[in-house]
Amino acid sequence: MPLSFVLFLQLTKLVKQALNVPRGKLIAIGGAEDKGSPVEAGDVFKPNLNFFELGILRRIVEEAGGPHARIEVITTASTIPYEVGNNYLNAFGKIGCTNVDVMHIRTREDALREDFINRIQQCDGVMFTGGNQFRLTSIFGGTPVLKLLHNRYQKENFVIAGTSAGAMAMSKTMIYEGNVVRAHLKGEVKITTGLGFMDKVIFDSHFEKRGRFVRLAQAVASNPGSIGIGLGEDTGMLVTYGDRMEAIGSGLVIIIDGHDIMHSNIADIPEGNPMSIENLKVNFCAKGNGYIVSERKFVELMGASTTPIMTDVY
Amino acid sequence: MPLSFVLFLQLTKLVKQALNVPRGKLIAIGGAEDKGSPVEAGDVFKPNLNFFELGILRRIVEEAGGPHARIEVITTASTIPYEVGNNYLNAFGKIGCTNVDVMHIRTREDALREDFINRIQQCDGVMFTGGNQFRLTSIFGGTPVLKLLHNRYQKENFVIAGTSAGAMAMSKTMIYEGNVVRAHLKGEVKITTGLGFMDKVIFDSHFEKRGRFVRLAQAVASNPGSIGIGLGEDTGMLVTYGDRMEAIGSGLVIIIDGHDIMHSNIADIPEGNPMSIENLKVNFCAKGNGYIVSERKFVELMGASTTPIMTDVY
Repeated sequence: MPLSFVLFLQLTKLVKQALNVPRGKLIAIGGAEDKGSPVEAGDVFKPNLNFFELGILRRIVEEAGGPHARIEVITTASTIPYEVGNNYLNAFGKIGCTNVDVMHIRTREDALREDFINRIQQCDGVMFTGGNQFRLTSIFGGTPVLKLLHNRYQKENFVIAGTSAGAMAMSKTMIYEGNVVRAHLKGEVKITTGLGFMDKVIFDSHFEKRGRFVRLAQAVASNPGSIGIGLGEDTGMLVTYGDRMEAIGSGLVIIIDGHDIMHSNIADIPEGNPMSIENLKVNFCAKGNGYIVSERKFVELMGASTTPIMTDVY
Repeated sequence: MPLSFVLFLQLTKLVKQALNVPRGKLIAIGGAEDKGSPVEAGDVFKPNLNFFELGILRRIVEEAGGPHARIEVITTASTIPYEVGNNYLNAFGKIGCTNVDVMHIRTREDALREDFINRIQQCDGVMFTGGNQFRLTSIFGGTPVLKLLHNRYQKENFVIAGTSAGAMAMSKTMIYEGNVVRAHLKGEVKITTGLGFMDKVIFDSHFEKRGRFVRLAQAVASNPGSIGIGLGEDTGMLVTYGDRMEAIGSGLVIIIDGHDIMHSNIADIPEGNPMSIENLKVNFCAKGNGYIVSERKFVELMGASTTPIMTDVY
C-alpha cells in the first residue's frame, strides 16, 4: 500500500472521529432535596432546594446561552407533571430566566406531535425532570422527538440537562430498578436501554443519601466496559465533547471503574446470591474535579482543591 | 559484624514477629436486622434475625470450642442491656449452647470488679453486643478487663466477637460518629481510639443498608494506612493470625483500600467542604472470600464462587 494512501486512511479516520464528537453538552444532576426519603435520627442538615435552583440551574442557563436562552422543561418522567413544571418555571424565573416553557409529553403519541417537535427544534436546551426513568425510555424510545434531540446534541451547541430520573436516562445503559437493601444480590439491579446520549457510562442519582454504591457497583460489575457515575444530590456532571466531565454543585460525584476487576463471581453464581468483586477503582469528584471517560482519568481543574464552596453562589 | 551474629539478629526478629501474632480470633459482625432504620418504599425484604442467630452465632460457638464453650455476652454498648442480654441468652440457647452468661458492665468501676475479671479469665470467648461504640471505649479504655482481653486474645485460642458497635470498637482506629448525609464533607466523620484488638483497619457496620460507603471512605482517606472494612448486616469477618480475614454470613463485606490514593484534597480544604479522592480500591467479599490485611490481598477460599448460600445453615 503506498504511503500516501495509508496517510489518507488515517486522515479519514481522524476526520470521522472529529465529526462523531458531539458539539452539544449534557448536564446530569443527581436530584434535588429528596423530600420523600427518611433522614437519620438527629439529623439537622437539609439540602437547600434554593441552592439547587440558584447554583446548578444557573449553570444550565449559562451553558444554554444565558438568561435569554430558550429552555424547554420536559416533565415526562414525573407522575405530577404540572406541579413539577410549575416549580421549574418559578425556579428559572428566580434567576431571571423567563424564556422557559414546559412540555408535558405524556405518551408516545405526544412524542410525535409536530408542535413539540417544532419547539425542540427552536429551543437552546431541554431539562428532563425527575420521576421514573423507565417512563422516559418507554415513551421516547424510537420517536422523532428523541431523534431530533440526538441530532441537535450531536451537531449543535445544544444543552440536554436532566435531574434524577432525567440524568439516569441519559446513558445507553440505564438502571431502571434496584432496591439498595438487596443490591448485593445478583440479579437485583435491573438494566435496560436509556435515551443513549452517552455511551460507556451508567448514571445513578441521589447517590449518597440513598446509599446506592453497591447497586451501581453491581451494574458496573455486570457491564465492566461502562463507568459508573454516581451523582449526589445538588450535584452534577457537565459533559462536553461527549466524554469530558466536570463536577458541579455542592456534593460528590462518585466514579466506579470496573475495567481492572480481577476476580468476580457474577457470571458464576445463581441469581439471588451475593456477588464478590476484586479491585474496583473509585474516585470521588467534588466541584473543580473532572473525569475523562475515554481515558478513565481523574483530573483536577484549575483552582479546585482549596477553594471553599460558597453556600449560595458559584 | 560476624555472620553468626547477623543470623542471630534475624532469627530474634522472626521469633519476635511470631510471638506477636495473636493466637485468638476476632469475629466482627455488621449487625443484625436494623429495626430502627427505615426501609425503601415497597421493600419486602426483611433480614431474618434468626438467620443471624443460627448462622453467625453458630460460627462463633464453633470457633469458641463448640456447644459447651463458655461465652460471656458483654452488653456495655447497649442502653437496653437487660433486653439485649436476654435476647442473646435465648439465641444461644436455640442452637444448644447453654453455657452462656451476660456481663452488664455499665461503668468504669464495673470494669475493675474482680468477679467480672475472673469470669473473663475463665470463659472461652466474649460477645460484645451492639449499641454505642463510644460507650465501649470510654468505659473499657485502660481497665484491667480490657488488658485481660488483650492478653488472652494474644496468647490463647480465645474468641472476641462483636456485632455492630461491638465490631466497630475492635480496631485501634474507630469511627464514633458520622451522619451519612454529610459524610462527603470534611470533618463530618469522627474518629477516636477503639479497643485496639486489631491495627491498620477501620470497621464500619450496617454498611449497605445505612449507605455508609462515603463515611468509611472519608475515614480511610484521612487514615490511608488503614483498610476500611464495611460489614453488611448478617455478615462478618472472622480474623485469624491477626490479619487473615474470612467473610461469613449472607451479605457483603466491602473493603476500601486507600494505599494507592493519588490526588486527595482532604488535607487542603476547610472543614465542611466536599472531599475529592482519586483511586480508592474497593473489593466486595461474599461468603467464601477472604482478605489478608497486611498484604492488601483479596483471596478466594475453597469452593467459594459457585456455592449457593443456604438460607438457614452454614
